Amino acid sequence: MSSISRQAFSANGINYQPSAKPIVVICMDGSADEYLDTTMAFDRMPNLKKMAIAGYRGMVRGALPSFTNVNNSSIVTGVSPAVHGISGNFFYDAAKDQEVMMNSAEYLRAETLLAAAANAGRKVAVVTAKEKLRDILSHKMKGIAISAEKANQAKSETHGVAGVEEIVGHPTPVIYSADASLFVLRAGVAFIEKGLADFLYLSLTDYMQHTYAPDAEESLAFYEAMDAEIGKLLQLGAIVGATADHGMNAKVKADGSPNVLFVEDMLEEKFGENGFRVICPITDPYVKHHGALGSYVVVHVNDKTKINEIKNWLAIQPGITEVYDKATAVRVLEQPEDRIGDLVVLSGRDVVVGRRPQYHDLSALDGTLRSHGGRYEEMVPMVISHPLNAAYKMKAAGDPRNFDIFDFTINGTNA
Amino acid sequence: MSSISRQAFSANGINYQPSAKPIVVICMDGSADEYLDTTMAFDRMPNLKKMAIAGYRGMVRGALPSFTNVNNSSIVTGVSPAVHGISGNFFYDAAKDQEVMMNSAEYLRAETLLAAAANAGRKVAVVTAKEKLRDILSHKMKGIAISAEKANQAKSETHGVAGVEEIVGHPTPVIYSADASLFVLRAGVAFIEKGLADFLYLSLTDYMQHTYAPDAEESLAFYEAMDAEIGKLLQLGAIVGATADHGMNAKVKADGSPNVLFVEDMLEEKFGENGFRVICPITDPYVKHHGALGSYVVVHVNDKTKINEIKNWLAIQPGITEVYDKATAVRVLEQPEDRIGDLVVLSGRDVVVGRRPQYHDLSALDGTLRSHGGRYEEMVPMVISHPLNAAYKMKAAGDPRNFDIFDFTINGTNA
Repeated sequence: MSSISRQAFSANGINYQPSAKPIVVICMDGSADEYLDTTMAFDRMPNLKKMAIAGYRGMVRGALPSFTNVNNSSIVTGVSPAVHGISGNFFYDAAKDQEVMMNSAEYLRAETLLAAAANAGRKVAVVTAKEKLRDILSHKMKGIAISAEKANQAKSETHGVAGVEEIVGHPTPVIYSADASLFVLRAGVAFIEKGLADFLYLSLTDYMQHTYAPDAEESLAFYEAMDAEIGKLLQLGAIVGATADHGMNAKVKADGSPNVLFVEDMLEEKFGENGFRVICPITDPYVKHHGALGSYVVVHVNDKTKINEIKNWLAIQPGITEVYDKATAVRVLEQPEDRIGDLVVLSGRDVVVGRRPQYHDLSALDGTLRSHGGRYEEMVPMVISHPLNAAYKMKAAGDPRNFDIFDFTINGTNA
Repeated sequence: MSSISRQAFSANGINYQPSAKPIVVICMDGSADEYLDTTMAFDRMPNLKKMAIAGYRGMVRGALPSFTNVNNSSIVTGVSPAVHGISGNFFYDAAKDQEVMMNSAEYLRAETLLAAAANAGRKVAVVTAKEKLRDILSHKMKGIAISAEKANQAKSETHGVAGVEEIVGHPTPVIYSADASLFVLRAGVAFIEKGLADFLYLSLTDYMQHTYAPDAEESLAFYEAMDAEIGKLLQLGAIVGATADHGMNAKVKADGSPNVLFVEDMLEEKFGENGFRVICPITDPYVKHHGALGSYVVVHVNDKTKINEIKNWLAIQPGITEVYDKATAVRVLEQPEDRIGDLVVLSGRDVVVGRRPQYHDLSALDGTLRSHGGRYEEMVPMVISHPLNAAYKMKAAGDPRNFDIFDFTINGTNA
């Protein structure tokens, strides 16, 4: 293997002093800690267990809303949504009266540590399951940036690599599959083996977690297969850090049907028509997961004098757990002020919030409704392959964040 | 073993249909899931692992505030603090201008399922580490009720059993020790072995968790010793359900010193003197654990017209995560209206809230400050030794509570 740059770099005020070993951070999309617990109880994650014993395993707090692109943006920048600006897949631009999709780097307000690592001489590779994340994750970055979803379309000029299927030895997977995530890990292994990368961010997708509970055989087999790839990364001498963007919970009633509060309808019934716009920032083009239903919505109120009254009413509705006005959401939930609404609403562990029934197509679900977005999907696991030094042991015992994962993996394992 | 009553019983509207096997519920005080994860990663909890594989392991939501007597009261009644009335160790009775200690059954507003089980012919035993819980847990109950702390003072007339040290084969432990909890489990084993009980509630104490992080050898050895006793319970044919009253987090700054917000001082500095009374409902006579500092306080405000202004100001102070007025706290936090304050304040994962420095003696701490009481100690593990039936699998996938533990252990394991 050619020599690996140890040059320090910084991004968004955070300094990184990497070792000369390959560094791999994995975002195990939707991996509530129960997925690890259950698979490990059946002795089907031996490599992750080795990491926990030799290195560190603990819980870290994700960014809110507990959605994929919010937390992926935090992980590659090391900062909260208040700083990087990505607060969901969608926001409502009140001035332009437009609902704006944020799956593009033009909405990113922070630099990425991946770009900084590349500028410092690391061979960086970003592999994401879904194409939608590629633009943000690879913003201004020299190196490899591909998605599993469109692996066979990667070209040297635009993706930093071509012939991906041949390199990885697997065909481009369908996005609604275990293989979509496994391909990401396999690509990471192949890129290190072939000397194409020494600094990797591997971001999986949560189709499996949306569809299967931790004790389903499909889930156990999926995590077991993930673990096998993690084992190969460890065999290659990599320092591996793994975390999740968010957890996952069933969001159903006792009869198994979706447990939904349609907030726009609720508000109109109570306060009259045409005064409200509810934005579900989980909404994205991938509908089979969750029908655009999560445990977090923002509310725009036409009559601003009523905000406090509406807030107090929403706060005591069964199933709703937290309601914040804009100023408080900016502080407590670390949100960008111009990309939320007048109110931010979070719901319970088994409850999702939506707009109106006609905005949510649940017919495409591949199982019962499992989703995320709220407080009960905020805490996620963090596992590091190497022992933490004294300073990072202390940091781990405080209020570590999932978006500190590169910091822990790089700086936390320095002797 | 003499025949065990299978007579159904009910308490607080919940029906229980017990099997003829011994039924044991364990409250592993202060057992954040990380304690189980870490000890199991080192293969030092083989019996709990067996339970997870043969039965069920998942996360459940505790009652708030995430304190010991609140959750123990919920576990033995099956209902929330709004119903049973125990909202902490202390509350302020504004009418009488008195701070009232609630460690007595006279403050309990619900019946216990333990008393109901005894009336249905079960041989019930309650063993608690701390004497302070004995009165509430054994309220109106026929059977055995002892504490480890005062095991050698148990008498047949008042405790339902005498000669406890001889029966258990261990001396009365000191309360600040691993043995205080282990004695509870050993007593449970001995009572079943000797035919003295077939329906048990074993409530441990969290001195060890307050003092040691999950990866400390003292903690690993403690959980290993707990696991050995759990193994004996399983060997005796018991159906075992285990959960926790609350989790546990370090509450320190980067330099290891306690991370405290003194709310009464903060409010006086901002809003003027003599207008506030802050109650720390974690306050109890056992001071070595936490110095009366937890992540939950209630605030009484003299000038009721200022409540909203104070609420909004508190809500955006760094380290404070949630602030509720009384009506909202009653609904969202399931609190008894007459035993909270005008405002309820919760703090972050690494932050505790207190009154003023002079009310908190931290000199007695046996380590760095680790505590609980807030949202980040709300989610706790639940482990059941036997497979869940279909209805309770569904219930476990919803929003199960730690105080459903008797329901799960009894009704959830019926075929």
